[in-house]
Amino acid sequence: MEIKVLRDILEHDGEFARRTREDLRGRGVLCLNLIGAPGSGKTTMLRSLIALASDRLRFGVIIGDIASQLDAERFSPLGIPVVQLNTGGACHLSARLTRRGFEALASNELDVVMVENVGNLACPAEFDLGEDAKLSMVSVAEGHDKPVKYPLLFHQAAAHILSKTDLDPFVDFDRDQYYAALNATGHRAPVFPICAKTGEGLDAVIDWIAGMLDAKRKGREPGLRPEA
Amino acid sequence: MEIKVLRDILEHDGEFARRTREDLRGRGVLCLNLIGAPGSGKTTMLRSLIALASDRLRFGVIIGDIASQLDAERFSPLGIPVVQLNTGGACHLSARLTRRGFEALASNELDVVMVENVGNLACPAEFDLGEDAKLSMVSVAEGHDKPVKYPLLFHQAAAHILSKTDLDPFVDFDRDQYYAALNATGHRAPVFPICAKTGEGLDAVIDWIAGMLDAKRKGREPGLRPEA
Repeated sequence: MEIKVLRDILEHDGEFARRTREDLRGRGVLCLNLIGAPGSGKTTMLRSLIALASDRLRFGVIIGDIASQLDAERFSPLGIPVVQLNTGGACHLSARLTRRGFEALASNELDVVMVENVGNLACPAEFDLGEDAKLSMVSVAEGHDKPVKYPLLFHQAAAHILSKTDLDPFVDFDRDQYYAALNATGHRAPVFPICAKTGEGLDAVIDWIAGMLDAKRKGREPGLRPEA
Repeated sequence: MEIKVLRDILEHDGEFARRTREDLRGRGVLCLNLIGAPGSGKTTMLRSLIALASDRLRFGVIIGDIASQLDAERFSPLGIPVVQLNTGGACHLSARLTRRGFEALASNELDVVMVENVGNLACPAEFDLGEDAKLSMVSVAEGHDKPVKYPLLFHQAAAHILSKTDLDPFVDFDRDQYYAALNATGHRAPVFPICAKTGEGLDAVIDWIAGMLDAKRKGREPGLRPEA
């Protein structure tokens, strides 16, 4: 009985994800679902990346938080469309709630919608929002063992962002161990070390996003790698 | 119908929490539930703190992770009893699962059991495991806005650990804003800035824990502050 109830909820949410995916395909818009721990630097990276890519790609942003509008406010200097979603307690975005974000963005001509999920490495990985791909984000301040502890996200992600590389000299992050932990999840995705403060590494992420968008518009579903 | 099913599950888990609380009271053991984001430094702090306090307090540790035994292995040099619990996907410990950890520790004479919850600022705050108090942990690398975004944990916690203060010169953490955000949650708990690498600030945490234990053993339930 309990299982049935839970399945109904998930199937219902999956229907919202399917509709979102269909709409985005029709409009040729790429959607990426960014998942990282609290404080991994999701908002800071998105701001820097979108500013750097402003001559190439038109971005919209959907931000999920349990509470507050803080992150959405941080985008206002960029003059791009941003929607803040508050889950009111839930530790991840649902497809149903996220769809309201897409609807709020629908009047804008966009190339890419970045969804910044609630800060959490666990639950957001379990929910399909209708996105083309999930991105993992880990800061070097968090330690290299995260893929071992949260394998589902790292197994699924189509790209991995390794953030705050400016802190490398001051923390014990071991990149070899991080790569080994990633490989143990069976992932097949590129890793992008970045520093959002200096902009280091962001060009490579932008190129990757542009490649994913191009693949989608040419009718090739984005896979784990845009050139696949 | 769905609400009823969910309530049954929570009530059932609450029964495990009640039994654990009763057992711990009977044995005069203090239990603290440490909740922080992935990579906030929970394991590193516990190792340093337990080593520093080894002449004063007998610790046992219960560690929750979705997968892996990594954290439990990190305690082996200390020679204290440690139980690793794997949730197999769930983003928080339940009282039912944690009770198995307490049972595994039951043959040891202990003063304090530290529960290190799954790395997550959201869901673990919603579950009573039978502990005397919850502790929040945020590293300065995560940013000062965490209490605004995850208010439930910070409202509830009986003490707040602010970790990785050695990174202060290299990050934009604003302590005044952190305190303002904490105050907005209506909390009434002390804040302990610490650096587990150097041991700075850990003595104050140990004194606080000892005060909580003393209050419990004198029949005063630990409240938000041991002297309350």
